[in-house]
Amino acid sequence: MGAYLARAGEIVSRCRGLASHSEQVDGLTRTFLSGPMCRVHAEVGRWMNLAGMSVCVDPVGNIRGSYPGADPNAPRLIVGSHLDTVPNAGAFDGPLGVLLGIGLVGLLAGRRLKLPIEVAGFSEEEGVRFGVPFIGSRALVGDIDADLLTRRDARGVSVAQAIRDFGLDPSRISEASISTGVLGYLEMHIEQGPVLEALSLPLSVVESIVGQSRLEIRFGGQANHAGTTPMHARRDALAGAAEWMIAVEREARAVADLVATIGCIDAKPGAGNVIPGEATLSLDVRHPEDRVRHEVVDRLLGCARPIATRRGLRVSSESRLDQPSVAMDERLTAALARAVEDSGHPVHRMHSGAGHDAMIMARRMPAAMLFLRSPGGISHHPDESVLVEDVAAALAAGARFLEELERGRE
Amino acid sequence: MGAYLARAGEIVSRCRGLASHSEQVDGLTRTFLSGPMCRVHAEVGRWMNLAGMSVCVDPVGNIRGSYPGADPNAPRLIVGSHLDTVPNAGAFDGPLGVLLGIGLVGLLAGRRLKLPIEVAGFSEEEGVRFGVPFIGSRALVGDIDADLLTRRDARGVSVAQAIRDFGLDPSRISEASISTGVLGYLEMHIEQGPVLEALSLPLSVVESIVGQSRLEIRFGGQANHAGTTPMHARRDALAGAAEWMIAVEREARAVADLVATIGCIDAKPGAGNVIPGEATLSLDVRHPEDRVRHEVVDRLLGCARPIATRRGLRVSSESRLDQPSVAMDERLTAALARAVEDSGHPVHRMHSGAGHDAMIMARRMPAAMLFLRSPGGISHHPDESVLVEDVAAALAAGARFLEELERGRE
Repeated sequence: MGAYLARAGEIVSRCRGLASHSEQVDGLTRTFLSGPMCRVHAEVGRWMNLAGMSVCVDPVGNIRGSYPGADPNAPRLIVGSHLDTVPNAGAFDGPLGVLLGIGLVGLLAGRRLKLPIEVAGFSEEEGVRFGVPFIGSRALVGDIDADLLTRRDARGVSVAQAIRDFGLDPSRISEASISTGVLGYLEMHIEQGPVLEALSLPLSVVESIVGQSRLEIRFGGQANHAGTTPMHARRDALAGAAEWMIAVEREARAVADLVATIGCIDAKPGAGNVIPGEATLSLDVRHPEDRVRHEVVDRLLGCARPIATRRGLRVSSESRLDQPSVAMDERLTAALARAVEDSGHPVHRMHSGAGHDAMIMARRMPAAMLFLRSPGGISHHPDESVLVEDVAAALAAGARFLEELERGRE
Repeated sequence: MGAYLARAGEIVSRCRGLASHSEQVDGLTRTFLSGPMCRVHAEVGRWMNLAGMSVCVDPVGNIRGSYPGADPNAPRLIVGSHLDTVPNAGAFDGPLGVLLGIGLVGLLAGRRLKLPIEVAGFSEEEGVRFGVPFIGSRALVGDIDADLLTRRDARGVSVAQAIRDFGLDPSRISEASISTGVLGYLEMHIEQGPVLEALSLPLSVVESIVGQSRLEIRFGGQANHAGTTPMHARRDALAGAAEWMIAVEREARAVADLVATIGCIDAKPGAGNVIPGEATLSLDVRHPEDRVRHEVVDRLLGCARPIATRRGLRVSSESRLDQPSVAMDERLTAALARAVEDSGHPVHRMHSGAGHDAMIMARRMPAAMLFLRSPGGISHHPDESVLVEDVAAALAAGARFLEELERGRE
C-alpha cells in the first residue's frame, strides 16, 4: 500500500499543479483548446513519457499516451477522462482520471502486460466554450459532424478555427476516432456527490449513467396591482409555481434514485409591487430507468394542471432534453467490482447522476467507471477535493483490474 | 342626469385625447416635465379657461386653475389628481381626476359659490422619471428639499435642471406650497382594482390609504450538482422559498383587508442543472391598520425560520419601506358619503391599496377621495378604462359634495 500512497500523493499534487494553468487569474477555468490547455499538454505529455508511453495530440486536441502490450495484436484498454474544466473549477473533476491512468501505467515500471494501454486526456467534456459537451470523446467514437465544426464561441471563433489556432488540422478529425482493437474503456472520476462520504467508502462502481429530462414550465396568470387586488381576486402565476415546486419536491422524494431540480425561475413583470402574471421554471429530472423518469415527468406535469385550474392560471411545458440512461458494460463492471473487493474495500454500486465521457465511449465499446469519494460532496467549486488514501485505493483497485483483464485474456 | 352624462362623455374623450401626448410612439408614457406634458398643459389650461378659471403653472410644473368664490376670504377647496403616467399607461389613471375637477367647475356655468375652487393637475405622482413619487403634491405641502432637486434621471438631468428646461425657476419652488386658506382636498381616481366591479357599484368613498411594508427576504442553502446530490442531501434555497411563498399566501388570505405579494424572485446560480444555493424574494404587505400590518410582517418572517431550520437553510430579511397608513378626513369623507347617497348610489367605503396624492395632501389639510369603478380591475395598462355612466355618477356626487360644503359654510 506504501507504493500506492506515494504515487497517490504525487497524483494529487500533479492535479493541483495543473490547476495553475487557467484562463482566469484567481481560480481555475480551462476550456477547450485554450492557451492553458496547451501548457497542460506539455506537462501531461512529459508525465506520460516518464511512465513509458509514446504521446500524441489527436486532431480534436485530445492528448493520448500509448503503452504497448507484449502481444502486438491484443486489443487495448483505454483509461481516460477530461482535462477541461467548468468556470471557477476545482482541481480534480477530470484531470484526476487522466493522472490516475498515467499512475497505473507508472506502477508497471516498464513491465509489459499482454494488454496495450492507452491513456486519453480528453480536450473537451464540460461544454463551456461552445455550449456542446463531450467534443473530445465524441471524436474518439467518430461522432463529430460538419455542423459542430462551424459552431462558434462567444468571441465568434468556430470549432474548426479553434482547432487550427491550436496547431491542429480539423480536416483530419476523423483520424481521432478509434476503429477496432479496443477491449474497453475505464474512467475514474470523483463522485461529485455526498453518497460515498455518507457511507464512509472510498470507491464505488458505477452501474449506469442516469437518463435526463430537461423541460421549461410556464405558468400564466394576470399581472396586477399589488395594492388594489384583493387576495381572492388574484391570478398570481408565481404563487401557482410555488405550489407546484413543493409538489415536485414531494414526488421526487417518493421515488428511489430519482432527483428533480428547479434551478431557474423567472417571474414577470418582476416588480415588487406587481402581482406576477407569468412564472417560468426549469425542471431537471434524472433516474437510472428511462421508463420511471418518463412516468415521473408525466406525473409532475400532471400535478401542474389542477394547480393551474384551481388558480385560474394557464400552464404549458416544453421539452428541452430527453437523454436516455446509459448502462455500463456488465462484464467490465463485474471485473472492476472484483478488483475493488480484492483490494480490500466493500463493493458499493451506484448510478452516476452526472454525465461523463464513459457515456459517449459506451456507444462503441464496453465501458466501466470507478467513483472516488468527494469530501463534502463538493465539486464544480474551488473547494473540490479528494483524499490521498482514496486515490491510493483507486490505484490499488485499478492495478487489480488490469490483472483481472490480463487473466481474462490468458 | 342628462347634463352629467354629456359632460362625462366629454371628460372621457378629453382623457383619451390627452393620451396622444406621449413620449412613446405606440402607447402612452408621459413623465414629469417632459415635452408631451407641456402640450397637455396647453390643452388642460384651455379647458380650465373655458370653465371660467384663471390658470398658472407653479414652479414644480403643476398646472393650477382658480375659480374664485363669492366670499373673497373663504378658504378654498382643492380638487386634483396627476397628469403624469407610468410607462405604457392607460388614459385615466390621474388625468380623469383633473378633468373631473374642471368638469365640476364647468357645471357651475359661471355661477359663483361662496367657496373658491382650485383644480390642481399635479406634474408628478408615479415616480417614473426620478424614482421618487409625489413630487407635484409634495411641492404643495412644502416638502421639497435640496437633495431632491439634485436627484438625476436616467440621462443625468437633475430635477432642478428639468424644472429650468421646462421654463420654470427651481429657486421659487417654495411658492408652489399652499399656506392658509384651504378648506380641504378632494381627489377622484379610478379604483385600479376589481372591488367595485364585483359589487356592481360605480363609486366608493375611500376611508384610508393603506400602510405598506416592503422587504427583501433571502434564503441561503448550498448550490450543488442537480444530478449527483440525492434529494435527502439537498439544501435547496428555492425549495425553501417556495414553501414560504405558500405560507405567505395562506397567512394573507386569513387576514381581512390584507394583501401580501411576492413580485420578484431570483435563484442563484440560476442554472437548470444546479440546485439553487440562494433565493431572494421581495415581499409587499399592505393593510389599513399599521398594527395589523406589522404583526403580519413579523408572523411571515417568523414562518420563514422553522422552514429554513428544517431544511438546513439560513434566512435573513431587510426592510425597504415601512410607510404608515393615512386616514382620510372624517368630516370631509362623511360629506362625500352623503353626496354619493344623495345622488342615488349606495355608499361603499373601502381602503385604497395604492398610494395617491391625497396621502400627501392629508399632511396639511382635510383630504377625501372618491373611487370610480375600474372595468376588469385593469390599470397601468393600455386597456385601462372607465364607464361614461360612472363618470357621470362621480360628477353628480361631486356637485352634491360642493353643495354640502356650501351648506356647511352657511
